[in-house]
Amino acid sequence: MARFIVLDGVDGCGKSTQAALLVAELARVSAGAPLHLREPGSTAAGEQIRALVLSREHDLDPGVELLLFAAARRQMLRELVAPALAAGRDVVCERFHPSSFAYQASAGGLPEAAVLELLDRWAGAPAPDAVILLEVDPREAGSRRGAPLDRIEDKGLEFQRRVARGYQRYRELRPQTHVVDGRGDVEQVAARVRRVVFDGA
Amino acid sequence: MARFIVLDGVDGCGKSTQAALLVAELARVSAGAPLHLREPGSTAAGEQIRALVLSREHDLDPGVELLLFAAARRQMLRELVAPALAAGRDVVCERFHPSSFAYQASAGGLPEAAVLELLDRWAGAPAPDAVILLEVDPREAGSRRGAPLDRIEDKGLEFQRRVARGYQRYRELRPQTHVVDGRGDVEQVAARVRRVVFDGA
Repeated sequence: MARFIVLDGVDGCGKSTQAALLVAELARVSAGAPLHLREPGSTAAGEQIRALVLSREHDLDPGVELLLFAAARRQMLRELVAPALAAGRDVVCERFHPSSFAYQASAGGLPEAAVLELLDRWAGAPAPDAVILLEVDPREAGSRRGAPLDRIEDKGLEFQRRVARGYQRYRELRPQTHVVDGRGDVEQVAARVRRVVFDGA
Repeated sequence: MARFIVLDGVDGCGKSTQAALLVAELARVSAGAPLHLREPGSTAAGEQIRALVLSREHDLDPGVELLLFAAARRQMLRELVAPALAAGRDVVCERFHPSSFAYQASAGGLPEAAVLELLDRWAGAPAPDAVILLEVDPREAGSRRGAPLDRIEDKGLEFQRRVARGYQRYRELRPQTHVVDGRGDVEQVAARVRRVVFDGA
């Protein structure tokens, strides 16, 4: 059975590196070529939505951001994830519901339960088989980030702290979420991610 | 008190003409200049969303359409409607929740209650003081429509019939909605709209 794996966590936690390593490992052990996706975006419509949300031209509140991210995610699920899984291909996606929750609910101030309900109902299928949060020291992650590049990165350090707490809060509300220690060298972290994906722990 | 009035109904029912006449009448009797809005769009972000939803480049399901229209609407409510009302200006808007309900729920097949809940929660404030549906013979409205110009107009006659029934269904579920007979000459219809807006009947 093909699997849908989400890697999420604060900016600079190592999602992209670990997603690439996991995709390489899945390619080695699986039948079909795995699909590597990044949110927001990955579809043509999603890339247009991404550009709109991140553009410094617009002043969008967290509710508009949430609706737009949910639209991009639903399109990605329909257009890419569902067909890939049906064809027996594993899917690895960077960012998913935990990001929306951390940015738009915890840091953005939208009500937690309403945000989760919207995501589950309108952008929840197919659901991931595993959601993995990479946990790092926020200061370490901060040092890996460069200058802010878009409207959301412009929101500053206190906003990023609320985002980091948001990922923890997501895990409290969704205890089936896996937390992986993202500290240490890349190969150590990759081994921890593989343990979750292949051994379920 | 400034008022927020919605005019809605099938393509070709006369919304634009009646909205313009109502705006002219409100300009005559109100203190501030009324604001005339059209959905989807009216804000810079909303125009980009409109272009995305209507483009024949993308294959979007009714759920993605709904999320995008809700995002555009929330932005319009925050950026234009709320400030106008706060400044004492009346607002007349072509299309609102009834269009989303008719197109995405009734014609598109999304569950009615979930659609209304999403609209109320995420794109519902400020709420209109009056929602007016212009009711015309679907064949008459059809004869006023030209060739299909976008992805949603491409969906054809049976889709338009379901949309028309969707407006009726909206009114059953939201009995505070006003229905105005849109048949007859423009000035007769305008008089009926004015009776709703100024006399509440």
